[in-house]
Amino acid sequence: MKLYMTESSGNAYKPRLLLEMLKVPYEKIILDTKNKENKQAPYLAINPRGQVPALEDEGHVFWDSTACLVYIARKHGGERWLPTDPAGLAEVTQWLALSNNELHYGLQWARGVNNKIKQGNVEEYQGYGKQGLAVLQGRLRNNDWLALGRPTIADLACYPYVSVSPEGGFKLDDYSAVQAWMKRVEALPGWVKRA
Amino acid sequence: MKLYMTESSGNAYKPRLLLEMLKVPYEKIILDTKNKENKQAPYLAINPRGQVPALEDEGHVFWDSTACLVYIARKHGGERWLPTDPAGLAEVTQWLALSNNELHYGLQWARGVNNKIKQGNVEEYQGYGKQGLAVLQGRLRNNDWLALGRPTIADLACYPYVSVSPEGGFKLDDYSAVQAWMKRVEALPGWVKRA
Repeated sequence: MKLYMTESSGNAYKPRLLLEMLKVPYEKIILDTKNKENKQAPYLAINPRGQVPALEDEGHVFWDSTACLVYIARKHGGERWLPTDPAGLAEVTQWLALSNNELHYGLQWARGVNNKIKQGNVEEYQGYGKQGLAVLQGRLRNNDWLALGRPTIADLACYPYVSVSPEGGFKLDDYSAVQAWMKRVEALPGWVKRA
Repeated sequence: MKLYMTESSGNAYKPRLLLEMLKVPYEKIILDTKNKENKQAPYLAINPRGQVPALEDEGHVFWDSTACLVYIARKHGGERWLPTDPAGLAEVTQWLALSNNELHYGLQWARGVNNKIKQGNVEEYQGYGKQGLAVLQGRLRNNDWLALGRPTIADLACYPYVSVSPEGGFKLDDYSAVQAWMKRVEALPGWVKRA
């Protein structure tokens, strides 16, 4: 299994966490994004978005972080990390969607503006990110994990951008249940620091 | 099965299309969003985002359009609309992710600015939306459907915001394979117009 990534990418960190937790051997292909290797033809043939991550395995290629998580979880994680019954799969999916919506376009875009890697209206992104944090807090106030009462890929999808959200101007002290959940994720066997 | 929706919502249109195509009986609960019924306590207890759609069935509640699609497809669509083998599920998932990323924050946000229902930098959103359309066009140039060589929920997730993207300033004439695919979606048995 080959994971195209950078050490700093939050989206690449998601499948990395799962691979490490499941102890799946994989080859790291580190892209030279400073020299825009990710925007050149050889990599665009793998990932038409020109982003990381992408995953290659047994002739399959997946160019989206959520798809990578789903593939790895179903191939190597049995029913534990992503079950296939209708309600279980849908419950995990709604948190994957939160990570693709409020957490990416709120938390991460606000961080991008603050870190001067993207332009935009930081107040707008912060407002949207706070909606996402409020939904997380509402769930985690009475639950240890986002879905199904156990760690699933829902937690691994949401954790990376929450963990660096203070760089986007978010005060996690206002979300104590989210902070406690981050500690639980970081205590999972196989957890690794981003970079 | 109860679907909380509005007739005009693109995100609610996604599960509506699937319910109609699978001939699943469901009750439409139309929210009075003009009077902000969706932002008041009774509905926020169902959907903490305060948005449509939400789906209620047999004691389960899902408050995200992708989760609704996944639940309906797994409960009523067998393996046809969303298979559970690792590669098949991941292939569909990457297009669900495109619909949650470039299509929502590109196509739909540009449309929102043009229709004066949201503020923001329309050029930024248009640039992002064009990236999404280019990925769709690249896939559909040589394939009739987004995933697995057949209609899946990938197509139903991506179709709604593409179909109204001209309101966001996108010229679909530049994406002939996308136009041909839209016609194929509209010819699927059970397809309904949005509103």
